[in-house]
Order: sequence, then C-alpha cells, then structure tokens
Amino acid sequence: MMNHVSFFIASLVAAFAGFGVVAVLFSKIRALPIVNEDKAREIARAIKVGAMTFLKEEYRIISIIVLPILLILGFWKGIVAAACFFVGAIFSLLCGFIGMNAATDANVRTAIAAKDSGEHAAFSIAFFGGGVMGFSVASFGVLGLGSLVYFFVDSVQFVFYLSAFGFGASLVAFFARVGGGIFTKSADVGADLVGKLEAGIPEDDPRNPAVIADNVGDCVGDTAGMGADIYESYIGSMVSAIVLATTMYHQLSYSTLPIVLSIFGLFGSFLGIVSHGIIRVEPIAMLRNASYIAIAVFGALTFGYMRIMNIGGTFIRGDLFWSVIIGCVAGIVIGLVTEYYTGGAPVKKLAESSQTGAATNIIYGLSLGMESTALPVVILAMGIWAAFVFGGGTFGVSLAAVSMLATVAITMTVDSYGPIADNAGGIAEMASFGKPVRLITDKLDALGNTTAAMGKGFAIGSALLAALGLFAAYCQESGLKALELTQVEVLVGILIGGVMPFLISALTMRSVGDAALKMVMEVRRQFKEIPGLMEGTAPADYERCVAISTKAALREMILPGLLTVALPIAVFYSPLGKEGLGGLLVGSTLVGVLLALMMANGGGAWDNAKKYIEAGNLGGKGSDSHHAAVIGDTVGDPFKDTSGPALNILIKLMSIIALLLVSMGK
Amino acid sequence: MMNHVSFFIASLVAAFAGFGVVAVLFSKIRALPIVNEDKAREIARAIKVGAMTFLKEEYRIISIIVLPILLILGFWKGIVAAACFFVGAIFSLLCGFIGMNAATDANVRTAIAAKDSGEHAAFSIAFFGGGVMGFSVASFGVLGLGSLVYFFVDSVQFVFYLSAFGFGASLVAFFARVGGGIFTKSADVGADLVGKLEAGIPEDDPRNPAVIADNVGDCVGDTAGMGADIYESYIGSMVSAIVLATTMYHQLSYSTLPIVLSIFGLFGSFLGIVSHGIIRVEPIAMLRNASYIAIAVFGALTFGYMRIMNIGGTFIRGDLFWSVIIGCVAGIVIGLVTEYYTGGAPVKKLAESSQTGAATNIIYGLSLGMESTALPVVILAMGIWAAFVFGGGTFGVSLAAVSMLATVAITMTVDSYGPIADNAGGIAEMASFGKPVRLITDKLDALGNTTAAMGKGFAIGSALLAALGLFAAYCQESGLKALELTQVEVLVGILIGGVMPFLISALTMRSVGDAALKMVMEVRRQFKEIPGLMEGTAPADYERCVAISTKAALREMILPGLLTVALPIAVFYSPLGKEGLGGLLVGSTLVGVLLALMMANGGGAWDNAKKYIEAGNLGGKGSDSHHAAVIGDTVGDPFKDTSGPALNILIKLMSIIALLLVSMGK
Repeated sequence: MMNHVSFFIASLVAAFAGFGVVAVLFSKIRALPIVNEDKAREIARAIKVGAMTFLKEEYRIISIIVLPILLILGFWKGIVAAACFFVGAIFSLLCGFIGMNAATDANVRTAIAAKDSGEHAAFSIAFFGGGVMGFSVASFGVLGLGSLVYFFVDSVQFVFYLSAFGFGASLVAFFARVGGGIFTKSADVGADLVGKLEAGIPEDDPRNPAVIADNVGDCVGDTAGMGADIYESYIGSMVSAIVLATTMYHQLSYSTLPIVLSIFGLFGSFLGIVSHGIIRVEPIAMLRNASYIAIAVFGALTFGYMRIMNIGGTFIRGDLFWSVIIGCVAGIVIGLVTEYYTGGAPVKKLAESSQTGAATNIIYGLSLGMESTALPVVILAMGIWAAFVFGGGTFGVSLAAVSMLATVAITMTVDSYGPIADNAGGIAEMASFGKPVRLITDKLDALGNTTAAMGKGFAIGSALLAALGLFAAYCQESGLKALELTQVEVLVGILIGGVMPFLISALTMRSVGDAALKMVMEVRRQFKEIPGLMEGTAPADYERCVAISTKAALREMILPGLLTVALPIAVFYSPLGKEGLGGLLVGSTLVGVLLALMMANGGGAWDNAKKYIEAGNLGGKGSDSHHAAVIGDTVGDPFKDTSGPALNILIKLMSIIALLLVSMGK
Repeated sequence: MMNHVSFFIASLVAAFAGFGVVAVLFSKIRALPIVNEDKAREIARAIKVGAMTFLKEEYRIISIIVLPILLILGFWKGIVAAACFFVGAIFSLLCGFIGMNAATDANVRTAIAAKDSGEHAAFSIAFFGGGVMGFSVASFGVLGLGSLVYFFVDSVQFVFYLSAFGFGASLVAFFARVGGGIFTKSADVGADLVGKLEAGIPEDDPRNPAVIADNVGDCVGDTAGMGADIYESYIGSMVSAIVLATTMYHQLSYSTLPIVLSIFGLFGSFLGIVSHGIIRVEPIAMLRNASYIAIAVFGALTFGYMRIMNIGGTFIRGDLFWSVIIGCVAGIVIGLVTEYYTGGAPVKKLAESSQTGAATNIIYGLSLGMESTALPVVILAMGIWAAFVFGGGTFGVSLAAVSMLATVAITMTVDSYGPIADNAGGIAEMASFGKPVRLITDKLDALGNTTAAMGKGFAIGSALLAALGLFAAYCQESGLKALELTQVEVLVGILIGGVMPFLISALTMRSVGDAALKMVMEVRRQFKEIPGLMEGTAPADYERCVAISTKAALREMILPGLLTVALPIAVFYSPLGKEGLGGLLVGSTLVGVLLALMMANGGGAWDNAKKYIEAGNLGGKGSDSHHAAVIGDTVGDPFKDTSGPALNILIKLMSIIALLLVSMGK
C-alpha cells in the first residue's frame, strides 16, 4: 500500500540523496587545484564574473516580472497559491545558478586536466560539471512536486496549486532561455562575423574582443538557460500526469506515480554516473552507457513497482507500463534520428553544397532542417496513438512524457557536459596551452555537439508529449463537453496559436541579429582604435563586448515573454473563450514542435558541416567552401540556441497558463 | 426566381464573353508586327520553343499520372465521374497553355514597344498578355462549374462529381506548379550563381548560357504554373461553397450563388480592363484602378442580386452579404500587408543588414518572413470568425473565399503581367536595345515584383478560406458526428498533417538546389570549353541548359505529387479513419498557410532588398552589401516561386481528395 507519509519520505530521501551527489561532484571538481596557471585563471575569472553579472541582472528583471504575479496570486487566491508559484520559480533559478557555478568552475579545470593529465581526466571533470546541473534539476523537481502532492493532494485547489507551481517554473525558464539564448548567440555571431569572416583570425583567438562574451554566452545560454528549460519540461510533464491521474483515478497510488517514476529515474541516473568510475571506455561510449544504464534501471524498477502495487491493469493489453516503454523508446529513437540528421550522411551532403557558395548551403540546410521534422513527429504521433490505445488514454500519453524525462539527471548531465568542453577549448586556446591540449578539448567539444543535438531532439519530443498532457488536463478541467474542430472558435484559436511560434522565432532571431550588429561595430572599432591589438601586443576591451550582449539580451527577452503570457489570457477572456484557448494550444503546439525540430536539426547540421570542412575536407579551412559553411553555421546559431529552444518552452508555458486559468475558478 | 435554364444561359454567355475578351486581347498583341528585329525575334523564338517543349513533356507526364485515375474512376464510378475529373484537368492544362502562348507572344512585343513607342505602349502589351491568362482562367472556371451544376445538381452523386472536377484541377495544378517552379528556379539560381557571383556578368547577359533557360522558366513557372494554380484556387473555393450550399439549403438559388458571384466578378474584371483604355495614368495606378473597379462592380452587382433574389437574410444581422464584403476586404488588406513587408520599411532594414554580410541578411530575411505571417493570419482568422458569426456559418466562410477570388480575371491579369515584363527586359538586354529601353522594362518589371507578391498573399489567403470551406464540406459529407480535438485519431492526424508542408518544402527546395548545381557545372563547362564565349564572339549552347532544367523539373515533380495524393488515402483507410483524415486537413492547412506566407513574403523581400541596393543604395552594384543581398535573393528564389506556391495547392489538393473519398461511398 501507498500512503502519504511513506511517499513523502521517499521523495525527501531521493531529493536529498540527489543533492548529496551534487555536493560530491562539486567537491570532486574543486579538488583539482589551479596552480601556476595565472593566464587561465584570469580568463576563467573573467568568464565567471561576466556570467554571474548577467545572471544577477537577469534574475533582477525576472523578479520584477514575477513579483506582481506573486502579489496578484497571493491576494486573490491566498498565500498557498502564491507560495507554489514562488517555489516553482525559485527552484528554476536555483538550478540555473548552481549548474552555472559548477560549469564555470569546471571549464578551466577541464582545460588544465587536458594539459596535465590527458583526455580521460579532462572528460571526467566536464562530465562531473554537467552532473551538478543534471542532479540539481532532478532533485529540485522531485522535492518540489513531492512536497506539493504530500501537502495538498486532498485540497480542492490541488490542480490550481500544481498549475501555479508549473507556471512559476515555465515563466522563469522562458526568460532564462530567451535571455540566455540572445546573449550567447549575439556574442557568438558577432565574434564570428568579424573574427572569422573579416579579420581572418581563428575561433577563440584572444585578440578578438568578443571572445570572452562568447564564452560567457556558453555558460548563461547553453548551461543556465538549458537547465531552466529542462527543469521546466520535467515539471510540466509531471504536472500534467498528476492532474490527469488525480482527476481520472482518484487514487493516491496513481497521483504519486509520476513522482515515483522520477525517483526511479533519479536512482537509475545515479547508477549511470557511477558507471563512469567502473567501466572505462571512450568518452562517447561512456556517455551512451550512462544513459542506457539509467534507462534500464528505471524501466526495471518501474515494472516491478507497477506489478507490486497493481497499477495499470493487465500487462498484455491496456497496461500503463506500455506507456512507460513507449516513452523511453521514443526518446531513444528520436535521439538517434537527430544524430543521423546532424551527424550522418545529410551533413556530408550539406558540406558538399557549400562548394557552390553560401546560397546553396543555406537552401540545403533549410531543406535538411525541414525534412528532419518528418521522422520524429511521425514517431511521436505513433507513440501517442499507441500510448493512448494500449496505455490508458490521455494519462498514458502524459505518462510517456514522464518516462521520457524520468532519467533527466543523466540526460542533463550529458547535455551540460558539452558547453563545459566548449569553454575549456576556448580557455586552452586563449591561455596558449598548445596544440595537443586543443586537440583533446576539440574532440570533447565535437562529442558535445552531437549530444547537444540529441538532447534537443529529446527535449522537443518530451515537450510535445508534455504539452499534449497539459492540453488533456486543460480539457478535463475546463469541463468542455466538446472541443470540436468544426467550431469556429476552435479554428480561429488554432490559427492564432499557429502564428505564435513564427512570431516568437522572428522576434528572437532579429534580436540576435541586432545585437550581433552592435557587437560587430564594437569589435571593428576596437580593431581600429586599439593599437597593437591585431599584433597581440595590446589586450582587447572584453568587458565592453560582454556589456553589449548583456544589455541586448535583457532588453529583448521582455517582449516575447509578455506576449506569450498575455495571449492565452486575452483569448480566454475574449469571445473565443475556452474553446478558442483550446484551439490556440493545439495550433501553437503543432507549429512550435515542427519549427523547433527544424531549427535544432538545421542548426546542428550547419555547425557540423562547417566542422567537417574544417577537418580538412572539400578544401578545408580558409577555402571558399569553408567560407560558405561559416555563413550557414552563423545562420544556424540563433536557430539552434535561441529561437528553437524558446519554442520548446513556449508551448508548455501557454498550456500551463491555460490550465491555471481554468483551474482558477474552482 | 432562379431556374436551371436561365442560370445555364448566364454561365454560357459569361464564359463565352470572357473567351471573346481573350480573343480580342490576343489579336491586339499580335497586331504589333515584329519587323527588322531579327535578333529579338530569334531570342523570342528560342524562349517560345523551350517553353513549349517543356510544356509538351510536362503534359505528357501529367497524362501518364492522370490516365490510371481516369480509368479507375470510369470503371468504378461511371463515365460521368471520369468525365468531370477529365474536364477539370484539361481546363487547367488549357489555361496554362493559352496563357503561356500569349505570354511568349507578348514578351518580345513589349520589348519592341518599349523601344519604338515608349512606356505606355509597352505596358499595354504586357497588360494585355496578362489579360489573356486572367480571362481564360475565369471563363473556363465559370463554363466548367456552370455546366456541372446545370446538368447534375439534382443527382445524388452531385458532390462526388464536383469533387472529381476539383480533383482534376488540383492535381494538374500541383504538378504544373511544382514542375514549373523547379524549372524556373533551377535556371534562375544556376544562372545567378555562375553569372553574377562567379563570372561577374550582369543578369540577362547573352554570354550566360543559362540565360534562355531563365527566361523560359519565367514562362513555364511564373505564367503557366501560376495560371493552373489560381484556376485551382478559383475552382476549389467554388466547389466548397456549392457543396455546402447544396447540403445546407437545398435551394437552387443558393447552389448557384457561388457561380453567379463569379460571373459578376468576371463582368467587373471586364470593366476593369476596359478602364485601361479610358483612364490613362501611371502603370501602378492603372493596375490598382483596374482591380478596384472590378471589386466595386462585383460588390454592387452582388448586393443588388442578393436583395432581389432575397438570398441571405436581413442585411443588418446574419446576412450572407457580410461574407462577401469580408472576402473582398480581407483580400485587399492582405495585399496591402504583403506590399508593406515586400516593399516597405522592412525591406530597407533587410538591405541594411546586408552590410555585415550574407549571414545577417539571411537571419533578417527569415525573421522578416516569419513575422510577416502574423498579420495576414490574424486578419484571416478574424475574417473567418466574422464570416461565420455574421454571415451564415461555414457557408459564409466559403462564400468569403469565393468573393475574394470572384474578380480572378483582373487579379490574374495583374499577376501575369509581371513575368511578361521581366521577360521583355531579358529580351531587350540580349537584343542590345540599349539603356533607355532597359530603363522602361526595368520599371515595368519592378512593378511586376510588387504585384506578384500581392498576388501571392491573395492566393494564400483565398487558399486558406477555400481549404476551410472544403474541410467543412468534408465534415458535412463524412457524417462525422464529432471531430473532437481530444480524440487521439484527430491529434495524430493533425501532427502528420503538419509534417507534410515541411516535407514538401524540403523536397522541392532540394530539387531546385540539385538542379541548380547541375546548371552551374554546365555553365562553368561552357565558359571553359567554348572559346570566345566570355568575349562575346561565340554563342553559348543555350539548349543544353534548357534541357537540364527540363529534365530535373519533370523528374523531381513526381515524388511530391504522389506523396500528396497518397497520404490522405492512406490515412483514410488506416485505423485513424475519417477522424484522422479530418485532423490531417487541419494540420496541413495551418502549417501550409504559415509556411507559404513566410516563403512568399521572405522571398519577395529578399528580391526587393537586392533591387534596392542595385538602385545605388548602400554601395550599389558590386559592393559587399550587394554580394550578400544576391545570396539572400538566391535563397529566396525557391522560397517564393517553388516551395511556397506548391504549399498553396497542397492544402487544397489534400482537402479535395478527402472530400472525394467521403463522397465516393454515396
């Protein structure tokens, strides 16, 4: 039997064990001293200061937006509602903060380890750095939702409290992702435009004034932003599953199931990360093994638990465990499809198209990105169908999302490892650690690119499932008897919803473009006005570049965020009503998922096509093909790291606001 | 009172009066003799031969695809069904054929008129050339559907016959659009890549071996392809409105209303084109006046007719005439929005972004295209809502589509005028008519670019309304009691439907890229192997280039076409059933419209940003900015003239197949 107390204790134990892992990993990273490396230390410090300054400013602006919502919720719906929202938001900020602290400690030590102890040691540090983020996300998620279920599962406001918690997480994630995304890509694009394309100096060259901003960007965008993003997906999938379980089954063992699954996933991830110390193989195999071990352990525990607790019907037909399997398998398959499109034959073809210039490279890259949406979406559609038919209706679909994300600790570890390796390469370059070190960090970085693309495919897949779960919860809660496609309100809602992903992509891409232009002007100015900069005898003014990205990111993240929050509210209170809002969710989810996949895969493919040429193919570095490929990569930057990820959150943020609106009236 | 015979006579009179206009315009064009212009005549002949050869081959392949469908329909559902399909298809081919004949006669005479008689004479010839296409489309549409209604309105198979007719039109249109689109853009992109970017010779320079292929492409893609496209929209909107009227009202005056409206539109268009002889102002004003006169006449006649016939309820509330007004106004407003995004401030900003290179130009162009989807879709959504609420439910929505397209004769005239002016410029350049002549044709061509973008916005807007009308007819006919968004079949259908526009765009863009690569290789080979080519002393081998585009277009159009036809059939007979197919239509329509708008507007803006720089701004021709803008324009080519227009037809083709499938069983 499941009772409140034993469930709560399990949640607490799992969460604090997770925090224990975080502490151990942190201490392992910090155990490596930085001695006699003044240059590297100084660069790492500049990166850390830039990142922390940005994060502080970003959090300040987010607070200004969060505060009035907190007050409204508090006065209108009571202190508990406000507290749920607040905790949801603050946990998200904490994930980003802790993860980024670890990343900025790990990057320089990864570079030093590569220099002093070789590939395995360097890999370990970067991997541990990622682990801090991974286990923080999972532990905060289990702690927050476990407590919420324990204290409020019997409250009539339970759904509303869950939505408020999810809303806090999603809102912060959206700003963190958009702000971080604009920061990182304005710096990256700006640095590339002048550095590689105009001045002809290599990436991460210390003479480039935008180089520190670029590295800061990796931390605030690819680490802190992504942490908040995945945390939000994790919460979103659990919230939708808990709401559906509670309203459909009225049994504690069902309501707690999503969290129990996440606890199993956390334990599996723990064994996955421990495997690193036992099975010592190539880095790529280690990352894979860790993931597969985590998923296998998760699956076995879940199977046993569901049998013992007698949850989910007979195994052969109509069993919820099918949904768990579907979630895990769909996640892996989508990861493999992503790997193919961003690392396989299509990338080679894309590289070859660069031989006739940038125009054909762009045409092929866009075409590749568009094509790459087909398989994942069809796989997901089939998965949704199967989870629905064999695994218990809409609850089955949302349980598939929970399963896909249950091993988030290890997924996120693998994901966060990438930017740390990237940063380590930058530090090694700037601190003149020499060619052999750079080769190691380059290898680790390239590996990170593949895992990042896979992680993105995974994130988008789980986002779709979570959004559909939230949509089902919305329909359930809103008491809509019918949400028919032939109703004009639904059709109008679908159209307006479909526009949003295009609009948000447009806004964020232009923000990156605008900020990159300012960066280019500043870098050009420094090259012209600072004597000795190009010769390497005078240092660049890095802070100015960091300040440009900071300012742009903080200013430009506000409009997309407000639009995303305001639209569902406006539609709900318009004559379109809850039918229109239902349509809006479907339209924005469909278009959002397609665009996000296209952008993630297209961007990843452009990046790797460039790397393929840089590896000496088709004329290698400096050739016309390379020049064309760099243009493609630059276009792909905001695709994969700004606009695409923003859409991921957009669809869940709008869904959770919808759920909040309909559960508010109860 | 309306009776069968008077309606049929009216349709016949209108159609044959329209054919009379076609004959008069043809004779006016041919009245201009080509004397002492051997060079121009020879070039024009080469274009005509290339275009006709392609069309013949294209029609042969379309026949191979059409024939088995014809046989299946004939054996299974009888000779009438087969005949409806056949006539729908053959009228589409005839529109393309007649229109292209006129265009290839008018292009050289426009150039000669510009040389001998000045701007107004040149404008008139191009305008008349467009008019042939415009009035052919309208007359064939009224003739075909008028006869169908007269003969079969009381048949139980009426809806099926209408669908079969529409299917014939849509199927041919899809192949004509995709084939023509791949031809024109492979030639255009190929010519630009080597000509402008590598060899540094201007557009339309006779030394470029791909130059004739480029001009042939204007004829087969922008004229013949577009004619079949707009004819298909025209038919689609009428078919959906007739089906809904017949099943909802069971009155002949309602069933015939869509055709009567089209007759009024045809008459209005006639007055519009006559205005050209009376009000002599600047070309842009003439094009505008003609359109506005046509719409005003159409509106006045429709209002009177609906009052006299007592159709559509009281005027103040719940009147169908509101739908007519909404259709006209939405069409005009979308045209103006398109004009803004492809000719206004955003284009200037796009041109400025070229100053930092191709990458920022592409980022801004994509962002512009994405943003430009918002206003038109929101306007359409509001229009749909208003047409539904104030104008009689789903029939009101489809009547808005009919109204938007009723003045198709003049819309299409304005649209077809553009490529003729473009071609005239090419001929003037190749025949060395000198700078003053080129200035006139350039002015007429630039005007054509704006009208083409407006026409595309219009085409997409009407496509959305027509597709929704067909969707409503599908729901009505399929006897679906409910098509609820919470049904898993519907959701899965929506996801799969959403993938299609991305997949078709990917396939067609890559086809253009592949064919352009082959073209580049061939042009490079000719520059290298034909001595004296670059010096202008030896002629290029134009036929080889035409053959490359022909072969590529014919091969590459087949897969997208078969996919589009097969998918709805597969879904219908799968476990997803008619619910899944309903979802599929909604998903493909939503995503198709958004992508089509983005591609049309983005492509138009890139083209005009390049022209803005070529006019001497931001460094003018040959500057780095210009180089970057040419890359953007090249990316935009398949956007606006291949993939975007294909989507336009895709959504209606799938809808009409769905309607065919459900009405087949009756």
